[in-house]
Amino acid sequence: MSSARLTLVLGGARSGKSRHAESLISAHPAPWTYIATAQAFDDEMRERIGEHQARRDANWHTVDAPLALPEALAATRGPVLVDCLTLWLTNLMLGGHDLKSAFLALQEALEAVSGPVVMVTNEVGLSIVPDNALGRAFRDEQGRLNQRIADIADRVIFMVAGLPMVVK
Amino acid sequence: MSSARLTLVLGGARSGKSRHAESLISAHPAPWTYIATAQAFDDEMRERIGEHQARRDANWHTVDAPLALPEALAATRGPVLVDCLTLWLTNLMLGGHDLKSAFLALQEALEAVSGPVVMVTNEVGLSIVPDNALGRAFRDEQGRLNQRIADIADRVIFMVAGLPMVVK
Amino acid sequence: MSSARLTLVLGGARSGKSRHAESLISAHPAPWTYIATAQAFDDEMRERIGEHQARRDANWHTVDAPLALPEALAATRGPVLVDCLTLWLTNLMLGGHDLKSAFLALQEALEAVSGPVVMVTNEVGLSIVPDNALGRAFRDEQGRLNQRIADIADRVIFMVAGLPMVVK
Repeated sequence: MSSARLTLVLGGARSGKSRHAESLISAHPAPWTYIATAQAFDDEMRERIGEHQARRDANWHTVDAPLALPEALAATRGPVLVDCLTLWLTNLMLGGHDLKSAFLALQEALEAVSGPVVMVTNEVGLSIVPDNALGRAFRDEQGRLNQRIADIADRVIFMVAGLPMVVK
Repeated sequence: MSSARLTLVLGGARSGKSRHAESLISAHPAPWTYIATAQAFDDEMRERIGEHQARRDANWHTVDAPLALPEALAATRGPVLVDCLTLWLTNLMLGGHDLKSAFLALQEALEAVSGPVVMVTNEVGLSIVPDNALGRAFRDEQGRLNQRIADIADRVIFMVAGLPMVVK
Repeated sequence: MSSARLTLVLGGARSGKSRHAESLISAHPAPWTYIATAQAFDDEMRERIGEHQARRDANWHTVDAPLALPEALAATRGPVLVDCLTLWLTNLMLGGHDLKSAFLALQEALEAVSGPVVMVTNEVGLSIVPDNALGRAFRDEQGRLNQRIADIADRVIFMVAGLPMVVK
């Protein structure tokens, strides 16, 4: 399974997505690239970023790409972890960027990489309809993006309580 | 697998439920019946209905059944797609209809059809408790309805990022 | 499968978690212990508790443990159903208790029991980010707790529309 060129790891909040994705990448020879899409707007986010960083050692090279994810993928060689598509989508939507062209650029970048690439994303649609329009738009776009990446991925994993379920 | 008499396709928002359900039905000889439970209350809903319609061709015969789903099933022969139980439940609850008798009528209609029937529904319970009583009641009733149909279905499929996981 | 010492049953609201957990326990010789973490604060909760109780017969011995779950597990012999971790976590957080020591005490109690023990819990992270800090904190802690118990469990089951999917 570790020979997959493109892997998508989906799951809920605190389902062990990042940890599992790191274990998939670190099965390959170091060094590894960590493409971080997070922006530390507030203390909650700073704390999460800190926890994730504390798990990674000197074999990881971190690249910040809150928006320029396609470009970061194109510029990287060797095993890559992208964490995560949900924050990338958040940054795109809050910044008023065109999602159609961003999704297309990401897809083209993924089709060009030699891999292995492991991408982390959230599944956000398994609740009642959100009571605000932005929430509804976000879960629609996240669902569309997840479907699109899952379609071109060699391997798709759904995380449940820290455990991987193989979907594809 | 395509010989199942009754199939339930569950998933989150934008998980590819409708598309997968259409592919299951169109594996059977045309013509196919599409029982639509949607009511176009607003622009968001009109847009969704339009997207779904654009995917279907002249081999599909559309029947609108926002409330009279059991009757529509009883009146139909050949392959049927019901899209979806979540909007049917919404219409029932907003209209103040008796859910117990509606669920019983649906179950009886499903037990009488020769099939194949594919029903689409949402899983809405995988979040924290909704902050309003209607939201809590809705997710309880949706869960009850899903369990009931899954129990009598020959096949149950959980969609993740456009990909089917076979549950039953 | 019924020989598992520790089983975790996860799922959404009204996904059939309690019913499935009861069926797993009642495959063992009676009597069975039901450790209830629910507190009847309001009518909605009283109704839920009543529904669950109505399913259980005289072979069940009920122990109320809204907070003292580790102690209740340590004091029990024979097959045990814990229903559920989500209400236990709610009680801990609303009461301002230290989660770190509570989680550790639970883990130690579970490692000491001879079993079989079946624990019910909710997966609550598969939606967009909750709009309030307590909601976000709750889903983080629930996710952490679920991962921790899943890690030491012999068997983990994800419920979808009343049907079990084996995760581990």
